Amino acid sequence: MMSKGDLGLTPVQQRDYFDELFADRPLGDDVTLRPRTLGGRPALDVLVEGADRDGVILYLHGGGYSIGSARTGANLAAPLARRTGVPAVSLDYRLAPEDPFPAGVDDALAAYEELLAAGQKVVVAGDSAGGGLALALLLAARRAGLPLPVGAVLYSPWTDASLSGGSMDSRGELDPLFTRAHMQESADWYVGGGDPRDELASPLFADLTGLPPLLIQVGSAEVLLDDSLRLAVHAAESEVDVSLDVVAGAPHVFQYFTGLMSEADEALERAAAFVTRRLAD
Amino acid sequence: MMSKGDLGLTPVQQRDYFDELFADRPLGDDVTLRPRTLGGRPALDVLVEGADRDGVILYLHGGGYSIGSARTGANLAAPLARRTGVPAVSLDYRLAPEDPFPAGVDDALAAYEELLAAGQKVVVAGDSAGGGLALALLLAARRAGLPLPVGAVLYSPWTDASLSGGSMDSRGELDPLFTRAHMQESADWYVGGGDPRDELASPLFADLTGLPPLLIQVGSAEVLLDDSLRLAVHAAESEVDVSLDVVAGAPHVFQYFTGLMSEADEALERAAAFVTRRLAD
Repeated sequence: MMSKGDLGLTPVQQRDYFDELFADRPLGDDVTLRPRTLGGRPALDVLVEGADRDGVILYLHGGGYSIGSARTGANLAAPLARRTGVPAVSLDYRLAPEDPFPAGVDDALAAYEELLAAGQKVVVAGDSAGGGLALALLLAARRAGLPLPVGAVLYSPWTDASLSGGSMDSRGELDPLFTRAHMQESADWYVGGGDPRDELASPLFADLTGLPPLLIQVGSAEVLLDDSLRLAVHAAESEVDVSLDVVAGAPHVFQYFTGLMSEADEALERAAAFVTRRLAD
Repeated sequence: MMSKGDLGLTPVQQRDYFDELFADRPLGDDVTLRPRTLGGRPALDVLVEGADRDGVILYLHGGGYSIGSARTGANLAAPLARRTGVPAVSLDYRLAPEDPFPAGVDDALAAYEELLAAGQKVVVAGDSAGGGLALALLLAARRAGLPLPVGAVLYSPWTDASLSGGSMDSRGELDPLFTRAHMQESADWYVGGGDPRDELASPLFADLTGLPPLLIQVGSAEVLLDDSLRLAVHAAESEVDVSLDVVAGAPHVFQYFTGLMSEADEALERAAAFVTRRLAD
């Protein structure tokens, strides 16, 4: 398990460290990554042998809106593409602090519009900050009057950049990866002097009415636990179809451990069933 | 769709009305009901052709702790048995007001103990009051020092006999079946002069630590919505594995509409996957 990172690293140092851990992971012999542009940004088509069903999974990687890449996102997009038979594309949206909010949202929306223009049925998926960004994309698409993605898969989404969830402190010792201080650093980089409760930065506080079905998965050993619990409750109360899976004792984005941890395999199975159902409708 | 029942009917009148609606529904040519006793109470083995896998689903019917029967529970137990291949048994626990709390809990526990003594791996399932009773059974089994069921499937569970959920009023007009007044009548019959927050009558208020995985499904058009949302949050915060499915616009125990409503079929599919996984562990 990754241990808690040092605070005080520069964004570039954080990216190097994260890439060292995650940007070179084997994806399986059945996976080809094909560079492309999408909405004017670099992206990777995540092509799994035999994954040629209709539709596409637009994958938004995690990393506090400031680290990670299309390539690190492919670690989570590839298993979902394999299990569903649906191709994925992982986006290099712009990162903070160099490009703070709403640059990432703009990039995600532009990517979605290009997929839409190509006539594709889209499920959006993301982990951590990428989960928050996936939700923000739904809201931005609704605001732009576009047809919405048919569903969203959110792995341990970060939905509240104001860090007001109780688990931010109650899970601070339990969470093997993050404390409030880590999250605060990312939030500061992302929203800078802006309002951390802006609905596109903190979609937890948005009117969720009319959103497509959401699947939320989270571990109980996360400072971000409440970002998922509150989102599920808010979605339910907003007449949005929502499924929530909480895995006791699991860490942030435990789906990463597919093949190593039965809970991760079961979560992936549920996520794949969700994607398949959403694209079949 | 059933419409809101009149208030002021006697328990016997309510039972007659409910039985007229639900006690004679065809279950499918592949289903045989075999009367038996279980824990000293009448019960029905719900035998679906080909459903001969190991394990058993102990089904606890709904009906406000005061109406319904093993036979009405079979309407929901049979589809789950068919989809999982696991046999079910539906219990006639004693009903209020003639036999108020904790008679039903005692009966459920005695039934569970007999299945356990027979060496069977048990998933408990129930709808509405039966969902609350299923949770109460887990707590009673824990208190008795017994090995626990391997999981619980809760359809629109009634978890709070004190009716303190916000949806009790906010969903009062939306809910096609119940208002607070209906629930209050059932609560009064069940807990009588006792404490409606007793943890075996209102398992929402219990310490849930150590419970097995829970699957909760609920519609958003229910006065009981918050009984599920609060249970899911409480379970997650208690380190219990929990999955929650909220179906927008769906009514109380919408799983009843399997074969007629795609949301019901999808919910049943998820419930079956849950049961299968729990029994495989």
